[in-house]
Amino acid sequence: MNPLTHPTQTGAEPETPARELESLLARAAAAAPRWAALTPLERAAALAAVADMLDANTRHLVKVAAEETGLGTARLSGEVARTTGQLRMYGEYAATGAPFGVTIDHADSATAPPRPELRRYQVPLGPVEVFAGGNFPFAFSVAGTDTASALAAGCPVLLKAHPGHPRTSATTAALVQEALAEAGAPLGTFALFTGREAGVTVLRDPRVRAAAFTGSVRGGRALFDIAAARPVPIPFHGELGSVNPVVVTPGAVGERRAEIFSGFAGSLTLGTGQFCTKPGILLLPRDPEAVAELAAEVGSAPAAAMLSPQIAEGFRRRLAEVAGAPQTRTLVESSVTTGDDGRPLAGPGLFLVDTVEEFLQDAENLLEECFGPSAVIVQYDTEDEVTRLLDRLEGSLTVTFHTAGEGPHGVDLSTLVEQARGKTGRVLFNSWPTGVAVAQAQQHGGPYPASTSAHTSVGPHAIERFLRPVVYQDAPAELLPAELREENPLRLVRTVDGKTETA
Amino acid sequence: MNPLTHPTQTGAEPETPARELESLLARAAAAAPRWAALTPLERAAALAAVADMLDANTRHLVKVAAEETGLGTARLSGEVARTTGQLRMYGEYAATGAPFGVTIDHADSATAPPRPELRRYQVPLGPVEVFAGGNFPFAFSVAGTDTASALAAGCPVLLKAHPGHPRTSATTAALVQEALAEAGAPLGTFALFTGREAGVTVLRDPRVRAAAFTGSVRGGRALFDIAAARPVPIPFHGELGSVNPVVVTPGAVGERRAEIFSGFAGSLTLGTGQFCTKPGILLLPRDPEAVAELAAEVGSAPAAAMLSPQIAEGFRRRLAEVAGAPQTRTLVESSVTTGDDGRPLAGPGLFLVDTVEEFLQDAENLLEECFGPSAVIVQYDTEDEVTRLLDRLEGSLTVTFHTAGEGPHGVDLSTLVEQARGKTGRVLFNSWPTGVAVAQAQQHGGPYPASTSAHTSVGPHAIERFLRPVVYQDAPAELLPAELREENPLRLVRTVDGKTETA
Repeated sequence: MNPLTHPTQTGAEPETPARELESLLARAAAAAPRWAALTPLERAAALAAVADMLDANTRHLVKVAAEETGLGTARLSGEVARTTGQLRMYGEYAATGAPFGVTIDHADSATAPPRPELRRYQVPLGPVEVFAGGNFPFAFSVAGTDTASALAAGCPVLLKAHPGHPRTSATTAALVQEALAEAGAPLGTFALFTGREAGVTVLRDPRVRAAAFTGSVRGGRALFDIAAARPVPIPFHGELGSVNPVVVTPGAVGERRAEIFSGFAGSLTLGTGQFCTKPGILLLPRDPEAVAELAAEVGSAPAAAMLSPQIAEGFRRRLAEVAGAPQTRTLVESSVTTGDDGRPLAGPGLFLVDTVEEFLQDAENLLEECFGPSAVIVQYDTEDEVTRLLDRLEGSLTVTFHTAGEGPHGVDLSTLVEQARGKTGRVLFNSWPTGVAVAQAQQHGGPYPASTSAHTSVGPHAIERFLRPVVYQDAPAELLPAELREENPLRLVRTVDGKTETA
Repeated sequence: MNPLTHPTQTGAEPETPARELESLLARAAAAAPRWAALTPLERAAALAAVADMLDANTRHLVKVAAEETGLGTARLSGEVARTTGQLRMYGEYAATGAPFGVTIDHADSATAPPRPELRRYQVPLGPVEVFAGGNFPFAFSVAGTDTASALAAGCPVLLKAHPGHPRTSATTAALVQEALAEAGAPLGTFALFTGREAGVTVLRDPRVRAAAFTGSVRGGRALFDIAAARPVPIPFHGELGSVNPVVVTPGAVGERRAEIFSGFAGSLTLGTGQFCTKPGILLLPRDPEAVAELAAEVGSAPAAAMLSPQIAEGFRRRLAEVAGAPQTRTLVESSVTTGDDGRPLAGPGLFLVDTVEEFLQDAENLLEECFGPSAVIVQYDTEDEVTRLLDRLEGSLTVTFHTAGEGPHGVDLSTLVEQARGKTGRVLFNSWPTGVAVAQAQQHGGPYPASTSAHTSVGPHAIERFLRPVVYQDAPAELLPAELREENPLRLVRTVDGKTETA
């Protein structure tokens, strides 16, 4: 077995040497004002060049990633397309000017006191450290949503590679750098490094002005704490953990029983359950037959590859914690084995908790994320029980309702939905939380521990995470940046004296 | 002497009892969903009612505040007007919908994968703790900008009163509560409490979802650390310290010598120098005559009341640190005395550092904020020296340039201005940093330690600090909140399929 193919099985995460790290930091700091000085349209062109370069190399990228991650080529090809679409979309969105929020108030001598001329916009924060995620080797990794949004904002990126797919990371990074250089981006606009210690060194460096992270609650919180404890604290946009509860109403079961059960099994086992939006808890009206059908549906899903032995081990540990709770009954026993290629395989798991009351007796355990293809069904008898369970929920990326136009027991659902909104960033109806559309109206993030900040990490609004506002007061026209000039040479959307102007 | 009039001289800061605090927290938590459920227009009406109530009681409020703070009645009357204008402006701005960022992407089956319907907006975070500032007994205190922006966002406010003006705080709070109750706001929408320990208790309480603060670097950082270390961390929007450098070009001295010198003396001594935007460092082209004229100008300003003995003591200590630096020469020796009414008085202070090189030898000391009517003049010989000094500057609320359309030495100023922009949230030209206009385009906040977050605390954009995004995916129309409904019943500005719609 090629150790490069399964590097995490060796437990090794090579550290970029300190001298090289220093050079990357210095180059990123030097690149920051130059990358920021390009127009949003110029940066969009550079991002599009990166997208073109990755698209042109999709076959090779997918091959390497398939070897490293065990994710199928269909999924990986789609993920490359998602990643390049994202790069283009964020660049184009930034080119409209929307994230920069140009706002001009002309001087007004009629106010008391007289108002000076104010021209406000958002400027890039400076170098951003991005901690790549492991479960999306493209869309949340080297050239993924955090990198795309930081670059579109005008910030250089220092990318801490995920140890789960080092060759994919290195290959992607080389393509990104080549495309950026050809597009005229300054040296230092993007660099990849490796190593857990190096990640912390970069996070502590005063030249780094923000960080983004996708990963576990434990790891993310440790890094959040480091970012907050710096002499000069920086924003840490972490996407940590989520249980993504799903509430099914009796009407929905009556109306779309088979569709809901197969949809649930599909969402639960998609990507071997290794999605932050995997539905982890299913609230079902008491119905032993339905439970049996669901168990059959989930149990028929095949075992599939997990990303790494570490993740498989974490899954096994978490399964044991859930199985160990006296309140749970195992409906489908998950198997964690090793495939012919030495890669871990996980079969689906399903547990039943008979009543909400029992669930609440061990809520802290049962409401913790389980990363892998397993979920807990909780049977409820009254709407009030659903309320009580949601009340104990910590922040979650998603809450889903399957409805048939009524409440769990004929009561209006609006109160439950309002309660769910208070716990999450995305409320879904009659669909499944896996699959996060990249769109302007998307929100991927929720109250802690889903996220460490009130932002999205998917969709062009992610760009806003890496900007801060500045105002010019009574500036001579010749000293204004292009973004703020009266004649609007960059054709940005802006607000002038309270009125929105679209370019 | 009435101890209520000068309470800080007693050192006492009474603590709201634990049981009462618990009741305030419970009421704020109960009020949160109800205050959030009002429409932005309904909340605007409630804020306007608060403004009307304060306006109607201006005379009494000013009288009490003048007794407590020693600030003159003209200044205090203006501050009440600023405060009530702010309450109305934030409410009206929120009523347009702008802070809520409604964004709708209709379903699109042509994309791959097909895009669901997404309806995104921002929702209030929940109860907000506001730590009132001491130097603006109205505009940054009980009903000040933090309170107004949190309420306009839809968040209840728990107001930690500043010990410097307890009767002003209590009087204002009673009026705010009366007006809110009359306007139909739920009980618990606003409450005042007192005490340093109580402030920390509230900050640690899980029901509190954000905090805002105006005060010192030391105090603010300690609270920031507490907010970040919570099991569930919360955003802490602190406005801490700032030195507000002013760069004067030779051309400007040549053109508007007298105007600039008197303007500087005026800005420096305004409010006895007790403004976070007080110009603390003046970079002047080498010119001994100019220095003498400036010293005469500043020295002629009378001593004036300081807010409290603690602040006077802090000023005295900081003066000694600056005077103690071997690089400084005292041009105007500040006096800190006690007036007939027992209130501390401070006269203006002015120091000279002969060269930028000498300044940089003690930069850490000399770049620290001095809260009171004192500043340091640094003579420079080359533009490069100005660059080197700004390079050492930590984050500052403002950087000001006085120019005559040229660089310090005939070189284009744009590079210096760009450098300054990297250090501040407001770049001013040929004006003075004291006096922060309340306007949509305003930015009051800058890189740490000026602020602990990338936001403004003045102007309606301050509202955004207390919101977080949520998206509804494929929601049945009847379960959508009014803000997200297709027919836009609240007439909010919004973006639909990428196009801005103004109501």
